[in-house]
Parts: sequence; structure tokens; C-alpha cells
Amino acid sequence: MTTETSTGVTAGPAAPTSSAQVALRPVAPGAATITGGVWHARAEANRTRTIPAGAELLRTAHNLVNLEIAAGTAEGEAVGPIFADSDVYKWLEAAAWEYGRSGGEDLLATQHEIAELLTRAQAEDGYLNSVVQLREHERYRNLPWSHEHYCAGHLIQAAVAHARTTGGRELLDVATKVADHLVATFGPGKTEDVDGHPVIEMALVELYRETGTRAYLDLARWFVDARGHGIIEGHGHAPTYFSDRVPVREATTVEGHAVRAVYLAAGAADVAAETGDTELLAALQRQYDSMERTKQYLTGGLGARWEGESFGDPYELPNDRAYAETCAAIGGVQWAWRMLLATGEARYADQIERMLLNGVLSGISLDGTEFFYVNPLQLRSDAHPEGDRSPAHGRRGWFECACCPPNVMRTLSSLAGYLATTGQDTSGNPAVQIHQYAPGSVSGAGLDLDVETAYPWDGGVRVTVRRAPEGPVTLALRVPGWAEGATLHGEPVPAGQYASVTRTWSTGDAVTLDLPMSPRFTVADDRVDAARGCVALERGPLVYALEAADQPDGVVVDDVRVDPGSAVTAEHREDLLGGVTVLRLRGHQGSAPPSDARSPYATAGTREHATRGEAVTLTAIPYHVWANRGPQPMRVWLPVVEH
Amino acid sequence: MTTETSTGVTAGPAAPTSSAQVALRPVAPGAATITGGVWHARAEANRTRTIPAGAELLRTAHNLVNLEIAAGTAEGEAVGPIFADSDVYKWLEAAAWEYGRSGGEDLLATQHEIAELLTRAQAEDGYLNSVVQLREHERYRNLPWSHEHYCAGHLIQAAVAHARTTGGRELLDVATKVADHLVATFGPGKTEDVDGHPVIEMALVELYRETGTRAYLDLARWFVDARGHGIIEGHGHAPTYFSDRVPVREATTVEGHAVRAVYLAAGAADVAAETGDTELLAALQRQYDSMERTKQYLTGGLGARWEGESFGDPYELPNDRAYAETCAAIGGVQWAWRMLLATGEARYADQIERMLLNGVLSGISLDGTEFFYVNPLQLRSDAHPEGDRSPAHGRRGWFECACCPPNVMRTLSSLAGYLATTGQDTSGNPAVQIHQYAPGSVSGAGLDLDVETAYPWDGGVRVTVRRAPEGPVTLALRVPGWAEGATLHGEPVPAGQYASVTRTWSTGDAVTLDLPMSPRFTVADDRVDAARGCVALERGPLVYALEAADQPDGVVVDDVRVDPGSAVTAEHREDLLGGVTVLRLRGHQGSAPPSDARSPYATAGTREHATRGEAVTLTAIPYHVWANRGPQPMRVWLPVVEH
Repeated sequence: MTTETSTGVTAGPAAPTSSAQVALRPVAPGAATITGGVWHARAEANRTRTIPAGAELLRTAHNLVNLEIAAGTAEGEAVGPIFADSDVYKWLEAAAWEYGRSGGEDLLATQHEIAELLTRAQAEDGYLNSVVQLREHERYRNLPWSHEHYCAGHLIQAAVAHARTTGGRELLDVATKVADHLVATFGPGKTEDVDGHPVIEMALVELYRETGTRAYLDLARWFVDARGHGIIEGHGHAPTYFSDRVPVREATTVEGHAVRAVYLAAGAADVAAETGDTELLAALQRQYDSMERTKQYLTGGLGARWEGESFGDPYELPNDRAYAETCAAIGGVQWAWRMLLATGEARYADQIERMLLNGVLSGISLDGTEFFYVNPLQLRSDAHPEGDRSPAHGRRGWFECACCPPNVMRTLSSLAGYLATTGQDTSGNPAVQIHQYAPGSVSGAGLDLDVETAYPWDGGVRVTVRRAPEGPVTLALRVPGWAEGATLHGEPVPAGQYASVTRTWSTGDAVTLDLPMSPRFTVADDRVDAARGCVALERGPLVYALEAADQPDGVVVDDVRVDPGSAVTAEHREDLLGGVTVLRLRGHQGSAPPSDARSPYATAGTREHATRGEAVTLTAIPYHVWANRGPQPMRVWLPVVEH
Repeated sequence: MTTETSTGVTAGPAAPTSSAQVALRPVAPGAATITGGVWHARAEANRTRTIPAGAELLRTAHNLVNLEIAAGTAEGEAVGPIFADSDVYKWLEAAAWEYGRSGGEDLLATQHEIAELLTRAQAEDGYLNSVVQLREHERYRNLPWSHEHYCAGHLIQAAVAHARTTGGRELLDVATKVADHLVATFGPGKTEDVDGHPVIEMALVELYRETGTRAYLDLARWFVDARGHGIIEGHGHAPTYFSDRVPVREATTVEGHAVRAVYLAAGAADVAAETGDTELLAALQRQYDSMERTKQYLTGGLGARWEGESFGDPYELPNDRAYAETCAAIGGVQWAWRMLLATGEARYADQIERMLLNGVLSGISLDGTEFFYVNPLQLRSDAHPEGDRSPAHGRRGWFECACCPPNVMRTLSSLAGYLATTGQDTSGNPAVQIHQYAPGSVSGAGLDLDVETAYPWDGGVRVTVRRAPEGPVTLALRVPGWAEGATLHGEPVPAGQYASVTRTWSTGDAVTLDLPMSPRFTVADDRVDAARGCVALERGPLVYALEAADQPDGVVVDDVRVDPGSAVTAEHREDLLGGVTVLRLRGHQGSAPPSDARSPYATAGTREHATRGEAVTLTAIPYHVWANRGPQPMRVWLPVVEH
């Protein structure tokens, strides 16, 4: 399953070429594996339930049928949104990574079937978009909304994944014909439009990496730079929405539609890496800083606003109406991964972990059958479901706009690619970095390593050498930013950077990292309205939440208060929610709104608010498993008792 | 200018027939006047600037041209939204009330011109909608979005206002032809659809009041009851948006699009009053209670969400992203007015005052030339304007969807109608109630009264008898709910009800009400996230706000803290913002977010938040005058210092 590609480029989501100016490089597909724990369980549910159900849904929701009609193997009319093809491509990418992860000839056969279908559906000149072809729309007539480049981008990503995990070229042939058509059609002196939804930028760079065709990289760079001049005007949203208000090189923050913004940034990071464009990389660092400092939820969630699925103003981070689209957190991971490769800074690996284990993982049910599009940090009592994306409905099997489900699928099937990288240490020794901790194996810089850990439930990580090269190699282990007091072999190591050991290794050598797993109370900046006077609970990399089901009878989650001075105890509950560590803390039932109150407002001092009512023991669960027992009141930020 | 109509129905917005089951009745148009103070200044700006500019804008924005084309007096195509006619009608209603208020032959002439235009544009069978007529749309083909009944409703309201203030019938003739056409087309056994946007219900009841034609009332009742069965499906929003999820009689709260919801409720209240339907009235009281208790801003603003311009869940009341559409507060006034007439309860007059003086009045600039569509309770530093409704732009001269500006115009020109009512006291004596305080005059129950006051800046109100009938008459003065400690002639009177004097009056008799005008700190229920740990400042009926322009150098409004234990002083500043009383209080500059912070989150205890930084004197202005010096940071809810 571990296939080295012809260019020597080797693995995972985003794999810079050997000439790219990056600090770190991915390990080869299959060179990192996850064999147990949280991620393994989720990946297995993805394999056994989510991906098979996705294939069915792509048929019943007509996505595959559209392509069959375009291929001439079925009859009828296109059904579904203009971007219907992209769901097929994201599923196809998931299937490709999954084949790389776990094999399965059926899965390979389905990929071949779809590749065959796409080959037939593709126009002579390389154009391929079933909905546009079937509805006899003029190509690129309405690029701000037609998602034609967006669909092409997802096709290319699927084809690259397929090539990297199966070695098969048939999808890559379709994808390169699409890309050649784009190169012939778009760019300076040709059609100078950009798609309303980025992703083509990342895709073209990956295709350049896979094929070595420089024109793909050049077009990606052109798309990055053509954007941001307000060329998408008068399409129902301001240019901001389309990431088209400010050029990427000049932007100081992220704004507009969150998924569009982070996909564009990830593609720009790819361009910066492959072209050695340090100015562009610096601009992206600035934007990432701003996002993380002012526009990201504690869960890693991105995009505060339902209106336009967009980033809000700085510090505008409501809990109940957090949009925090699952796709945006996935795009955030993709961007952070590229920043990690480019800079080698541990903070980006911290970010990947925060997003994956909280804001992405909350997007799919434990059994892999239902999804959240929107990932709020609070669901109130009496919340009314409004539209199919509303969390008040609970999770849903699919969505009319079905971008999130196959995005989760491709993420869960390619997770191992985010575990480790290789590079050189400052002395020029080969080095392998382990960024994310899960039981399994990592191979890199000549070392074959076994990883034993019960992380994220336990903070102990033991890395054992199975095979070692001659000469010194550096093994670098990320110490997360929250892990103050971490030790390596019992010696303190600083948080927020890599703890390294450089030596000549022998089989059986082991390194033991201990990360402190004491529960932490977290506070937010005062400008974050909905978290003012509140604390959140974290333990290790996990954000916790109170969900109604776990609280004593009579406790109303909307009204509780907690005392951050009280002790918090952790207990692992193998029987609960697939096996989770819960946190117990003392709190107080606050006053519910008086039933006879005419308004929620009162002159100070005239209405009693018992913020320290009856003492109760509250139980918090990891945020990412909420809403697996039906929709119910939940909250991450907890008001503190007044002293 | 004071014209008694043929039915004996006499005044203002919503005037129940003599057979209606209501506690209170409006006074005749012109029987209440406002001759000075805040409302007079605003009404004068409306007369001299807003209404004339509106007439121009209706031409440049093509609304009038559409009607001219439909009338055959111009050529071309319809331009603008499907509901373009409604802006003309709302302007026409404003012109009619304004003529009733201040006269002006030009204003009357323009009304006649438009009436003539409408007569020509109207189809033989009574149908009238220029956009549908010009775009050759099939009538009522897309009633959820076509706003055909909505436009008809605003035409009818304009015609009724025109008839009541000028005595002229020509607009009423057009309106009755429209209404007859609706009666012939809609209802049980005919077309059983409802419009996507209520207002026709209120309008038909008013037309019934004006003409005595029972069929109009019957159709209004049918429209009220036909709604709420999910008949509007598959039109881009759930039935909730269209107030079509739950029948009015069964609903326990307000939900969906805020303007639609409150317009429907106001129309249902009209139906309940005219048909003596106590079950319907009880349902509306229940819904009003729920709205006021859980879904209304301190400013009276209605509709928490930008998404769908809708009400949120209970206690979901963000400050920065408050939508609080100007039109929704106006609709709230219309609903509260009908509840006041039906029940005689002072709480509804309190509500009218809160909405008018805060959430409605904030919708127009002091000079009458610019508007807010959206009325948030906070504007942050670095807020980015997104779309023409964004408060971060500052006020705007007009909007693509121009519902709010002419709605403000018709409200400002008809304000005096909300001042007073008549009825009987519990002993059967004739009674006049004064609900709102402004310098001017009130006539009712045989009493002619002069009102002297500097309210809302000063709490003294002196009512002097100019003319009195024989026999005892009750004079009832509203003591607002906030006015604990109010006195009538020096004797304490309870807040939240009417203080009454029953006697035989003589010319020169006077009653003096003193309302306490001490500034108040107001707190919100704990469930209101964005107000937790905060206070707001109120004085009299006014909500106050901190705006950046009034604060000492270096004070960042986003970061201040106030001490609710400190004294607040009031000072009237005739030179400021048209003359306002400002409030001064001690506060502290809190910490800005650390410039080197990587995220807004930190483990409790690891980052210092100086909530009691440098002591500063802060100045608050009435919320309704904010953004008259350009857009800038502003906030109503102020975090308190920690002790």
C-alpha cells in the first residue's frame, strides 16, 4: 500500500516537492499508522459505515447519476446543486486514502468504476462538470457561483490521492486533462476570472507535485494573486464573502466565508512553499496569527456567523450561534498543516490537534452515520431547529448542501498523514518529528518506531525503536502548548515546542514522554462577550462540555455555575460514549429566569439572582462526543459563581 | 385637519370600531398634538427633510416610474424588488399623516398625483401591482415571495390614512377595488393561499373600520387562521420564517422573521378586537409575554438574528450581532398599541415608549437624512462593514431593500396618535388616558388638556385643563414601570399602572406628575450571554450607550469596566446631538487583549486581566442618538469591575 510516486513526493495531505522551501516533509503514505485508540475507532467507523453509506447517498442524492447521464450511460436531467460533482470527488478521495489505510478490493473496484465513468463523462477538450454539461449552461458563465474550478479542484485532489495510494493513473489522466484545459483557458491574457470558491489552488499545486508540470503551479499562483481585487462583484454577496476584497499578500486577517478563506490560504501556502515566496508566506503567517488570536473558537472552530457562513469581527465569538462549520475546521487543519511544513513551528501542530480532536471530530457521530454541519459551543433549552443545518435537530444523515460529510470521510481516512514529518535538525542530522500521538507506528529519517499510548485519555507516550540506521538521528516529540510540566524520561521539557533526543539508536531503545493531564480551567479574553465571567474545562488536548444527560436530576444546564477554585476529578468510563474520560466538578444550580418575570431585565438590586444555589456535582464529557444521545442542552463555557 | 370619518372611527394607527371589544379607544386625529421636545424635533426633520427626500428617492430608485409605466404614462421596464410598490405606499401613508399633522398643500397635491397614478395603473378587475403587471408574471403565482398582498396591505393603510386626515376618498376607491378583488379571489373555497409577508391582515381590518364592509374583516380573519399550517413549503426558508409553522391561536411565542411575526400578530389583534375573539386575544397575550420575557432587547429591539432577520431562541440576545431591524421595532409598536387598546394595561404603553424612544428612533439620523436597517447594542473596534445593512458602515441614505426608511417616516408623522386614548373608568365615568408624555395637547372624554413637560429629559409633567365638560371625568396618567417613587401632586403613586384623578374639572385645573429620573443600572437575566456580568445604564425611558467620541483620550470602549456602586450624574447638554442629557460615571480602563497573545484563551490564572485599570470618567449618551458622528465603537452593556 505504501507507494512511492515517481516524483519522490510521498504522502498525505499536501506533500511539497523536494525543491520546495519547507522546514518539514511528510512521511510516505503508510509510513505512519494508527492502530488503536480514539482515531482508530473513528477511522474504523468511517471504513465500515460512513464511506459505504456515502456511496449509497451519492446515488440516491443523484450525484453519481448526474455523471452517468453526462457519460451517456443513463438518461435524465441533472439533479442537485451546481457543485454536486464535488461530493463525488471528496468521497473518491476518502476512498483512495482509505484504500491506502486499510486496503479492500471492493473499495478499489469502486474507484475504478468511477474513474471509468469520469473518463466517459469528460468532454473532448478536457472540460468536466456534469451539472453544467447537462443543464446546457455556458461554461464559466457564472464562475462566482458555478463552482466549476471548485469541482475540478476536488477531482484533482481525489486523483492525486488515488495515484499516491494505489499507483493507478487513470484518475490522474482525467485530472490532468481537466488541468490542461484550465491552463489553456485561464490566466493572464486568457480568461481572467476566478472561481467563487477556492480549492483549485491547493489542487493544482498537488498536481504539480505529482506530475512535475510547472504550468499547474503557475496557474495556481495566478489564481492566488488574481483574487482580492474585487473582481467578483454583484453576485449576491460583497467581494469579502468570496475572499476577493483584499489580495492575499496584503490581507492582515481572515474574513468572509470561512471555508473559502481557509481553503484559499492553504492553497496560497502551497504556492509559497513551491515557489519559495517568503513574502507570501509572511502574509499567511500574519493572517493565521490574526485568526488564532481573534477569530477562533476554543474548539478550533472557525466562522462565527451563520450569515454568509463567515468569520465575524475580532472577538465576535458567540457560543449559541457559533457557525463553526465542520468543513471550515477541516480547511483550518489543511492550512495549519502547510504552515507546519513551511515553518516547523509546534504551534501549528497544536492547532491541528485542537481542530481535529474538537471542532472536526464533533462533526460526525460516534457510529459514523450522522453529521453536524454547524458546531456550536452551546445548545439552549427550548432551542428551535431552523433548517437542516440547525444543531437543535441533532445530527443528520446528510444535507442538501452535503459538503461536510465527505469532507469528514476524507479527513478520517488520511489522518495518519498528520502524525509525523521528517527534516534536519540544526546540526544537519536527519530528524523525525512526531506531532500527534496515537498508538501505532511511525517511520522516518531511517527510524522505524512503535508508539504506545492511551492518549488523549492518558499523557504517557512511549516511543520504541524497531529499526535504526547507522549514525545519529534526532527524534523530536511535540510538547503541546498546554503541557506545562511535561517530562521526557522524567526531565522537565518546555511546553509549546519539540523535545528532541539526538543519538545513534538501537532496536529496543525507547523514549518516554509524559504530558500532564490535570484538568484545566480556561478563561477567554474579556472581549469575547459570551465567555465573559465564564471558564471552560480542558484536559490534555480536549475541550469539555456539560451535556444535560450527564447531570443530576433537576439540574438545568442553562443555569449552572461552577467554582473554578474547586477540585476537578477525572474518571475513565469505558462504558460511556465509546469510552471517554469524564470530568467531575462541583457546581451550583443557578436561578432559572423567574417564571413571573415580565422581561429579562431588571434594575440592579431589585431581582435576586442566586448564582450559588444548591451545590451539585456536574459531569463534563469531551465536546466532540456531544449530541450522541439526541439533541439536548450543552455548553462549553460555564459561568463562575460569584464570590 | 381633524376629520371625523363616516363610521365615527377617528384616529391614528389602528382605530377599532365602536362595536369592537376594546378597553381603550384612540382619540381623533389632531386631538393629540406634540409641539416641542424630542418628538417634535424629529417630526419636523421628517417633514422638512425625510419625506421630501423620500419622494425623490422613490423616483430615482424607480418605484414611482414602475407605477407610471403600469399607468401608461411612461415607458420602460420594472426596476427593483418585487415589493417596490410598497415603499411608495408607506411614503404615501407618511405624507397623509404628515398632512394631518402639519398641513402643506404641496404634500396634499403629491398625494393626489399618486392617487391619480394608481387609479390609472390599476387593472380593470382591481388588481394592482406594477412589478407583476410589467414583468408579465402570472398573478399570485409565487405568493410566498411576491409580496402581492403585502403591497396591497400598504396601499390600503395609506388610503385609510389619507381618508382620515384629508377626507379625500380617491385613494380609498383604489384601495377598496383592490380589497374587493382580494375578497373575490381569496378565502375558503377560492384560492386558499397566504402571502409570504403579513400586513394585509391589519390593513383589511382598518379598511373594514373605515368602510364598514364586513367582507374585509372576514377575509382578514381567514388570512390569520389559514396561516400556521405549513402551507408555505419549499420556498427557501422553513415555514417558521413565514410565521407559518404554528397557527396563531396555538403559538406560545414569536419565531421566524421578526417583521413578519409582529405584523401578523398586530393584524390578529385587530381581528380579535373586532370579532370579540377572546381566545385569539389570549393567544396573542401569551405570545407577547414570551417575546418580552425572552426575545426582546433592552432597547425594545426585536429579532436577534441576521440569518432570516429572525427571532432567536429564548435569551439568545447578542449585542454585536443584534439584528433588531428598525421595521421590527415599528411592528412591535403596532402590536403593542393594539394590545394596549384591547387590555388597557399600562405595560403595553411602557413597551411602546421603550421601542419608540430607543429601538425605533435609533433607526434615523438626527437630521432625518440617514437610516439604520439594523440596530445593534454594540459596535466593536475594527468591525468590518459587510453589505449595505451593516452598522459598521454608519447610517445610509437608502437601502436596496428600502422597507425601513418609509416605515420610519410614517411612524414619525403619526406619533401623536399614540399619546392618549379614551374609555370608561370602573365607575362608568368617561376617562382619558395619557400614555406618552410630550409637550402639546390632548383632547378626549370632553377634556381639552395642555401638557407641559421637558420629558424625557425631566420627569415633571404638568397637565392643565383648557376646557372641561360638566360632570366627573377621570384623567389617567401612565406611571411607567421603571418609575418607582413617582408622585402625583407629591403623593406616591405605584409604578407600572395608571395614576387616576376623577373629578369634575374646571378650566385651569392642573395635575402634576413627577417621575423620578435618577439614572438606573440595569442587569439582565443570566441566560443572556452577552450581558452576563454587565450593567446597562437607563434614565427615565431612555437606554444609554457609551460611544467612543465622548470618552477621554486613550479609553477604548471595547475594554472599559464600570462600577455599579459609583455615582452617576446627569447633565443636560443643549449643544450636543440636538440637545441631550448625558450621564457621567466612573469606570476603569480594562486591559486590551495582550498584543503578544497567541489566542484569546488562557489557562485560568496564567494571564493577567486588569479589570480595574486606570480610573476614568465615562460619558454615556442616549442610545438613540448614537452614530450621528460617524460609525464608531459603541456599547450598551458594560462589564462591571471585579471586586
